[in-house]
Amino acid sequence: MEEMKIERRLIMTPGPVGIDPRVSQAMSASILGQFDPEFTNIMNKTMEMIRASFLTKNQWSFPIDGTSRAGLEAVIASIVRPGDKVLVPIIGRFGHLLVELVERAQGEVHTIERPMGEVFDQEEIIEALDRVQPKVLAFVHGETSTGRMQPMDKLGKACKERGIFSVVDAVATYLGTVIPVDEWELDAVIGGAQKCLSIPSGITPITFNDRFAKEINKRKRVESGIRTADDAEDNPFITSNYLDLTQLQDYWSERRLNHHTEATVMMYGLYQGLRLALEEGVEKRAKRHEYHHTALKKALKALGLTIYSDNNHEMKMVTCVEIPENLDGEKFRSGLLKEYGVEIASSFGALHGKIWRIGTMGYVVQKMNIITFVTIFSAYLVNNGVEGLDPNAALSALFDYYENETY
Amino acid sequence: MEEMKIERRLIMTPGPVGIDPRVSQAMSASILGQFDPEFTNIMNKTMEMIRASFLTKNQWSFPIDGTSRAGLEAVIASIVRPGDKVLVPIIGRFGHLLVELVERAQGEVHTIERPMGEVFDQEEIIEALDRVQPKVLAFVHGETSTGRMQPMDKLGKACKERGIFSVVDAVATYLGTVIPVDEWELDAVIGGAQKCLSIPSGITPITFNDRFAKEINKRKRVESGIRTADDAEDNPFITSNYLDLTQLQDYWSERRLNHHTEATVMMYGLYQGLRLALEEGVEKRAKRHEYHHTALKKALKALGLTIYSDNNHEMKMVTCVEIPENLDGEKFRSGLLKEYGVEIASSFGALHGKIWRIGTMGYVVQKMNIITFVTIFSAYLVNNGVEGLDPNAALSALFDYYENETY
Repeated sequence: MEEMKIERRLIMTPGPVGIDPRVSQAMSASILGQFDPEFTNIMNKTMEMIRASFLTKNQWSFPIDGTSRAGLEAVIASIVRPGDKVLVPIIGRFGHLLVELVERAQGEVHTIERPMGEVFDQEEIIEALDRVQPKVLAFVHGETSTGRMQPMDKLGKACKERGIFSVVDAVATYLGTVIPVDEWELDAVIGGAQKCLSIPSGITPITFNDRFAKEINKRKRVESGIRTADDAEDNPFITSNYLDLTQLQDYWSERRLNHHTEATVMMYGLYQGLRLALEEGVEKRAKRHEYHHTALKKALKALGLTIYSDNNHEMKMVTCVEIPENLDGEKFRSGLLKEYGVEIASSFGALHGKIWRIGTMGYVVQKMNIITFVTIFSAYLVNNGVEGLDPNAALSALFDYYENETY
Repeated sequence: MEEMKIERRLIMTPGPVGIDPRVSQAMSASILGQFDPEFTNIMNKTMEMIRASFLTKNQWSFPIDGTSRAGLEAVIASIVRPGDKVLVPIIGRFGHLLVELVERAQGEVHTIERPMGEVFDQEEIIEALDRVQPKVLAFVHGETSTGRMQPMDKLGKACKERGIFSVVDAVATYLGTVIPVDEWELDAVIGGAQKCLSIPSGITPITFNDRFAKEINKRKRVESGIRTADDAEDNPFITSNYLDLTQLQDYWSERRLNHHTEATVMMYGLYQGLRLALEEGVEKRAKRHEYHHTALKKALKALGLTIYSDNNHEMKMVTCVEIPENLDGEKFRSGLLKEYGVEIASSFGALHGKIWRIGTMGYVVQKMNIITFVTIFSAYLVNNGVEGLDPNAALSALFDYYENETY
């Protein structure tokens, strides 16, 4: 088989996105055994950094060895027993994924839904909590399919007061905005790798508090072959071994019970990615995302495009823009990638063919990239016959902003 | 947080083991989007190479984005419905893991067991198949806890004749010995990454045939949010979404249905690891493992140690050696790692403290490493007060072999 050859890309999608060369460098370090004290030391420090990234003191802050979906499934499959009621407020495609995961766990799903492009008022969700009285509230923080960010500062507390567990899919917003897990009293939060953290997909940082841990440990089941007569067996155990958080707790603590073989090189990448993010600072990093998001929006508006559902609780790491009329959005997108190496994203369901999603996540988010993107994107639109656009105005707006504003 | 600093190691365990620098180099390539044609091209070529590595024509040959255990769970959770009978012949710790996974899938487990250090005669297993009449036979090919390799050339055919599905955990033997999946008529086989393939842990190549695919697709369940009225919903669906092989088929085929975000950089590593392995050749690679395994055994015997269950269907990639009397095996092992950077493994259960397991897997298996290992290991044993050992004889035996034998 021929040698792999990777073309240069400017990835302006909601992930996976380009990564800092220092992450690649860290990932090229040599292998350590999984119980080598040097490696368990890296594991412990990674836990510390995950805590810092989520602004939490939660002991249980560690990665799942799988993509974001594995992190979501680990949390949901561990907390939701068959028959448990779960409320899922849906604002887009990834809300449906949570429904899917609850259904797989054989929970009883209750949904409330907002039209595409909108979010819930938190009071609406709290009212539904009172009506449904679920065991778990599970929702998406940053819904990349529509580019919305669900306000959630009151939801954790509301859940706690009602004895409900809050589960937050923060895959797309993690380290692109500030998520103060303890202050907002959220019970379990799942972050993402290949988005604003900007490391390769395949490992997923999560955090959960003691209240959540106590609940899932009612289902704890010691592995066959290690189990003793004292270990309860008749509880409704978690149907996954790989994604069983109670087993992972034994692996990610002083017990270091043998479970999977931690993904060595992905751990190196996570360590380095977190290290660089914390060096920048969680707040400063959030401001960087917002700064360039604003810059991009100004440029796209000056170009003559329409921002989708503008200023309506939008994510600061995905810009949704309406596809110009009479243009085949998919053909354009594919040409932009193939001919110029620039990748943007389409959307799902009703929004497919109506909007493009332009990601500004993590390492990618820097002036040169945004300028390059706006230049190529604008010119290629004009070249594809879209009328009434002003590429010069787009670039002017961008430079004006960069010259006059800071963060 | 401080910069990560990885110490030099010679990892002589049954994994994770050191990797070829060319794998690290490939893994430092820049990120591609998951649906970028350049990336899906890499995915398709990786499937081709997985087929070649398993000597199979199976279309369904792709990796699971998780460690080996995720690959095992994906296969077992997809084929075993609640109540299904599964026969698990146990020859060590990893047989118990298969039991655990079947229990989690709520299958009905039937076991037969051989004493530690032994394997089954294939006829014994076939008799048990006739007695139990299971839906699935699941067993471990290379049982690293005892260093045994279960003969299996007749088992696939025997299962097929009886309408039973054979599932093989070949995590430890994959690409360290030849596994002719089609010739042996095995239905589903799970390989490993961080062992003889010698890439980092975190991605797991599997293969399964059309007969197996047809069976698992009876449980297919289209994801919530994409499902239509035509899609059956009342079948006993797979309780995992992440590890649902029927969904993964849609992702690893022309449909490219959105599922997880493929672990980009792990894919690069898998591509390169397979490429290097196939360049060496599956048979030649197996011979290299056997050659150095033989060399190591000769050296250890000449040193004065006793090989555990010698010549009894032993794996050619793990050498089990008895711990000298009056020596604290764990303290020695820990000192060897801490002071000299050389890592060997202990074992599990009844064998813990009785044997060490010395891995010779993948890239690590080359003359300089074996010589370095024997030198340091011998001297450190003597230095720890073990009497009656002859380090010079060990080295002589090793060099005699290397000078006079080839593969």
